[in-house]
Amino acid sequence: MEPIPIGGSPLTRLRARVRRLGAPLCLGIDPHPDQLPAGLPATANGIETFARGLVEAAGELVAAIKINVAFFEAFGSWGIAALERLRADLPGDTFLILDAKRGDIGSTAERYADALFGRLEADAVTVSPYLGEDGIEPYLAFPERVVYVVCRTTNASAGRLQDLLVDGVPLHEQVARWVAETWPGDRAGLVVGATYPDELRRLRQLVPGPGFLVPGVGAQGGDLEAAVAACDGTDAPGLVNASRAIATASRDDDWREAAAAAAGRLRDQMREVGATLGR
Amino acid sequence: MEPIPIGGSPLTRLRARVRRLGAPLCLGIDPHPDQLPAGLPATANGIETFARGLVEAAGELVAAIKINVAFFEAFGSWGIAALERLRADLPGDTFLILDAKRGDIGSTAERYADALFGRLEADAVTVSPYLGEDGIEPYLAFPERVVYVVCRTTNASAGRLQDLLVDGVPLHEQVARWVAETWPGDRAGLVVGATYPDELRRLRQLVPGPGFLVPGVGAQGGDLEAAVAACDGTDAPGLVNASRAIATASRDDDWREAAAAAAGRLRDQMREVGATLGR
Repeated sequence: MEPIPIGGSPLTRLRARVRRLGAPLCLGIDPHPDQLPAGLPATANGIETFARGLVEAAGELVAAIKINVAFFEAFGSWGIAALERLRADLPGDTFLILDAKRGDIGSTAERYADALFGRLEADAVTVSPYLGEDGIEPYLAFPERVVYVVCRTTNASAGRLQDLLVDGVPLHEQVARWVAETWPGDRAGLVVGATYPDELRRLRQLVPGPGFLVPGVGAQGGDLEAAVAACDGTDAPGLVNASRAIATASRDDDWREAAAAAAGRLRDQMREVGATLGR
Repeated sequence: MEPIPIGGSPLTRLRARVRRLGAPLCLGIDPHPDQLPAGLPATANGIETFARGLVEAAGELVAAIKINVAFFEAFGSWGIAALERLRADLPGDTFLILDAKRGDIGSTAERYADALFGRLEADAVTVSPYLGEDGIEPYLAFPERVVYVVCRTTNASAGRLQDLLVDGVPLHEQVARWVAETWPGDRAGLVVGATYPDELRRLRQLVPGPGFLVPGVGAQGGDLEAAVAACDGTDAPGLVNASRAIATASRDDDWREAAAAAAGRLRDQMREVGATLGR
């Protein structure tokens, strides 16, 4: 089995992991206190135990891990302390995305980048496009880290702003083009939901380079085939995120085994799709 | 002196504070570790001491306090613990805005709202518009709290998305109209920077209702007169935020006195502008 380089460039690690797994699967950890397995308390300790269990059960069956920081923030300083412990104990060959979708400028964005890249040592983060370059550059100032700019989200009201037509082109396409042109290369990617497969395909054609981070597969009903097909960024590999489909596969005592089985199934499905795509 | 009601509706408190002060001045607390007064360490304790000093020195000279959570997050769980202590010790008649500009959907937004309104007991927060209604409703689900939707920011690249023309109308105007129409009344406001006074005036005419939160006055060179003039929302009072102009008035031993003096001067200037406006 191909060894994954520990340390070094996050993108080297991501490429090696995707290649070894043969699937662009990302494990999403969004531990909602109401959706914990039976017996785990709805506390910072409860979500930490849950998150650790998911990583232990499925960490080797995925190419990357995406942690949604909101679910830790909701428990205040205790929740962030839990996230810090969780992060410190992740294997050194992990590719860790912190899903924070921060959107602020200048010295504020620098502080968020410090929090996410500096203190929590994320390999990648998600950020908002609404403030323009100033809201994104401070993250790219951290060498080698990856920044996924939110482009097309999976929610019902995503189109309220994202589909507004600018010169006949939807805003989310403008965002995709802007990101691809402003930061060519492998360090700026895009968050593009799988719940709108047509947009996903169109965006992939429009900007062949950036790595896509594709949420919305599984519980949100997104299109797995379109999602995997969109992972062929010419600059960086993409990732398809599954959260609830793995994390809440069972809420009984067998939740660890069920999570591993669900991750394995998704990996296999993605390998099959990849094979039909000739990868 | 008019007493400020403790507890109860945040907007009742805000209205009473603005009326009593005679000025819509908001104290912005964005403690950058590189800009602390001499002698304070660049640690979570250092920024906590600084923030407490600012509140003690200038808290009664302002109508509201806006804390930028990024500067606490940058110190991880210790930083959030410092923010929790700071918040717990704020006077009961404070109107507290947590400037977090979060932008996420559904259960994630609910967790952020829990963190900011539930755990940290903010009276108001700032949020991103990019995800549409789904990104904003979870905050409004907290009764009586105020949500300032980011509309027009103060940074150089603000226009990259915010000025794109949709049907001949800049995106930030579309956002303003959408927010005002979707959530009429006093609970949804707008963040509108003072560095673009023409836009500020145009937005005020376009949507007479919402309370504006206007950053960018002082160190960022925004137009104080235009900012104060824009605080006449017919649904809710606006606020003009000053951060560095107060917080870094002096970095010597007299920083507390200097902050109080700077806040007093800004309050007086705003009163004068208010008088010329016939308020």
